[in-house]
Amino acid sequence: MPAMTSFEDADTEETLTCFQVTVYHPNQDHNQVFQGLRFFNREKLSSMEVVKFGRSPNLCHYTFQDKQVSRVQFSLQPFKQFNSPVLSFEIKNLSKKTSLLVGNIELGYLNKMDLPGRCIVRFGEYQFLMEKEDGESLEYFETCFVRAPRSLLEERHYGKPVPENGFSSSTLPTEMDENEY
Amino acid sequence: MPAMTSFEDADTEETLTCFQVTVYHPNQDHNQVFQGLRFFNREKLSSMEVVKFGRSPNLCHYTFQDKQVSRVQFSLQPFKQFNSPVLSFEIKNLSKKTSLLVGNIELGYLNKMDLPGRCIVRFGEYQFLMEKEDGESLEYFETCFVRAPRSLLEERHYGKPVPENGFSSSTLPTEMDENEY
Repeated sequence: MPAMTSFEDADTEETLTCFQVTVYHPNQDHNQVFQGLRFFNREKLSSMEVVKFGRSPNLCHYTFQDKQVSRVQFSLQPFKQFNSPVLSFEIKNLSKKTSLLVGNIELGYLNKMDLPGRCIVRFGEYQFLMEKEDGESLEYFETCFVRAPRSLLEERHYGKPVPENGFSSSTLPTEMDENEY
Repeated sequence: MPAMTSFEDADTEETLTCFQVTVYHPNQDHNQVFQGLRFFNREKLSSMEVVKFGRSPNLCHYTFQDKQVSRVQFSLQPFKQFNSPVLSFEIKNLSKKTSLLVGNIELGYLNKMDLPGRCIVRFGEYQFLMEKEDGESLEYFETCFVRAPRSLLEERHYGKPVPENGFSSSTLPTEMDENEY
């Protein structure tokens, strides 16, 4: 049975780090701002890539159909911290017009920062709850988009509460071992 | 004289941050490792981009013709530090096989760090003296490649000495104002 043999001989599959993004916009029910996103679809991406979000389908991997959004709004890039075995992500604001709020830290044009494992990212009326679920692979990761029924700022309905500063306490490295494993 | 008028009415041109890279490889005289680089040519690039260096012309902006080089070896991305009006650069090692030395700091696969204004970067037998000359523009920057006649580690013939740890003291922010302006 050659199929069985090749299955049995194949390398053990590595789990992928999943970058889950729960999105919300006040007009999401009335217009097509999130039409460029496929919800509940896990997409596998290479860690070589920098993933751009914005209005332009030519420049961005994930798009928002809204003229108030910059052609490229922000980018995400995977990397590995010196002291960690798993992927982390860096976010950079690529919009000259709009600030990007990561928790309560304001990123201007070309400012960047390492994302905590769980935080709320905002620009204009857009809200994103970004949550990283660690996997083994370094070469690949996956993304998954979910649509929030209500504003992420009014409600705390995603398991662990997100405090006022927008960062979850479980993202502090000192608490990681206890809370995440 | 419409030509004069449009010249006089044009926006004042901003100076560009120049990222100068002095390269050295022990076999640079005998083979074509640096054939993919145009020396003494200032190339204008967008700050939206992440500039990749490696063997593959399909994946990289700057290539090294050498089978010992990874298809993508490392990347450089411009960004703006929170407390600075000018562009900075981040370097990330994208090679699974080879470490990248930035000064005396070793970057493994997917490790990244902010580049000091002047430092020596190495992988395998490749050596690069990377020097940033600040400009006004944030949207664009330029690169310029120069070929070193001798190893950058043996000689200190680039004006300011590069100490043993590979970092120039002029890259310390506290000394920047005195030394660079």
